[in-house]
Amino acid sequence: MSDPLNETPAPADPGLAARVRIILVGTQHPGNIGAAARALKTMGLSQLVLVAPEKPLDDDAYRRSAGAEDVLDAAPIHATLAEAVADCRLVLGCTARSRRVQLEQLEPDQAAQRLLAAAPEGPVALVFGRERTGLTNEELQLCHASVHIPSDPAFSSLNLAAAVQVLAYEVRLAMLAAAPAAPAAPRPDELPATHEQVEGFFAQLAETLEEIDFHKGRAPDSAMRKLRRLFLRSELTVNEVRLLRGILADAQRMARIATGRLSP
Amino acid sequence: MSDPLNETPAPADPGLAARVRIILVGTQHPGNIGAAARALKTMGLSQLVLVAPEKPLDDDAYRRSAGAEDVLDAAPIHATLAEAVADCRLVLGCTARSRRVQLEQLEPDQAAQRLLAAAPEGPVALVFGRERTGLTNEELQLCHASVHIPSDPAFSSLNLAAAVQVLAYEVRLAMLAAAPAAPAAPRPDELPATHEQVEGFFAQLAETLEEIDFHKGRAPDSAMRKLRRLFLRSELTVNEVRLLRGILADAQRMARIATGRLSP
Repeated sequence: MSDPLNETPAPADPGLAARVRIILVGTQHPGNIGAAARALKTMGLSQLVLVAPEKPLDDDAYRRSAGAEDVLDAAPIHATLAEAVADCRLVLGCTARSRRVQLEQLEPDQAAQRLLAAAPEGPVALVFGRERTGLTNEELQLCHASVHIPSDPAFSSLNLAAAVQVLAYEVRLAMLAAAPAAPAAPRPDELPATHEQVEGFFAQLAETLEEIDFHKGRAPDSAMRKLRRLFLRSELTVNEVRLLRGILADAQRMARIATGRLSP
Repeated sequence: MSDPLNETPAPADPGLAARVRIILVGTQHPGNIGAAARALKTMGLSQLVLVAPEKPLDDDAYRRSAGAEDVLDAAPIHATLAEAVADCRLVLGCTARSRRVQLEQLEPDQAAQRLLAAAPEGPVALVFGRERTGLTNEELQLCHASVHIPSDPAFSSLNLAAAVQVLAYEVRLAMLAAAPAAPAAPRPDELPATHEQVEGFFAQLAETLEEIDFHKGRAPDSAMRKLRRLFLRSELTVNEVRLLRGILADAQRMARIATGRLSP
């Protein structure tokens, strides 16, 4: 997925991104912590927080972070979730849909919008529980609301880092939507052709069909109507009209030679 | 993320989900194939297709599939992407944002909507390239459009399975949002052309450009790349392919007469 020619819109407000904390509670596999670090960093986030991980970070964690070592190295470790969210303005807990705790349930996109709306006022957190058992009731009670990724009920268990990826992706979409993006101007040859240019092409196309004897006595209207519909649908650029007319010109030249109206 | 008290809305149309193919091309690590299988299954999808994976599925693949062994076991393996998409109605390639190939670029949510809109007419595909190098230009040219996950340009490389997770998530959102409306059956001559029919047209177009001497010594690739982009964008019908090939045949006939290879 990497590309040296990468070119994307201006980064979203880095100040806002620094307010969004991704908290992993009681993670069992250090490799998942590494993969989560990579996931959040690809989405422009950097604040990873660990609560009582089962094992210390190891080679697997660093390997799966794939370049997000800085995120792993900067991640504070707390003994309890209460400690990790003490200064937070808004705390959302990721859960399977459940009635265990009567919390408001948000869709991922709603959650991202709530987090960004609250972030100017202080740190905000997205909390992810243990691989097998999720968050405890006590931990969920520290959350203002829960977030549920709408997985297939028949096979609902996302990998921890995959869940972080989906939520971080929604946070990034919300950040990009909030940022005052300046759309890039299209290159001149990618400008849409004017009505006149497209009609000029259609006129030459109709001429060419006559010259190559495409109609063979049939009424020409039906074919041209279908061709107009096809090319109008594709919204030709200036450059494409030029290319198509070049091809027609060569087909016409050949037809004129073939019919003796032009010498080879 | 699993929960015994899980309760989610009714599953989306399983018929539609079975039309969405997730194709992994030249994957280097079998573990990523397993993680991708899990990712797509959590989102209610089941059609995994492999193209020339570097190594056979191994223990790591099955371990990381975490219960999606059925998806791995059912995944066909093809030698080339062209073979894997031969019967597809719409093919979208996942890329970093790039100008290497001039394809229409879709956001993940737009891509999901396009796939679901086309799925009633035939199989549709989301194509993911190699971990380090993505899809080749030749492979991208088999795609109707590209999809870009709007990652941070400063750290843009998502794990392969994480990218599959994000796109499969968007497909699931689109499936859940889709009303169970039965689309009107298109008229037979308005059926979308298959991949194979469109490639047959491109092959004849390339031949015709040679025969009318369009290139005049220039490399033919650039023109064909632009023409592919134009015609893939317009999603040709069976009838339109027939019409265009009829026009090409007459242009070829004239060119053969003009150059003395055929008598008038």
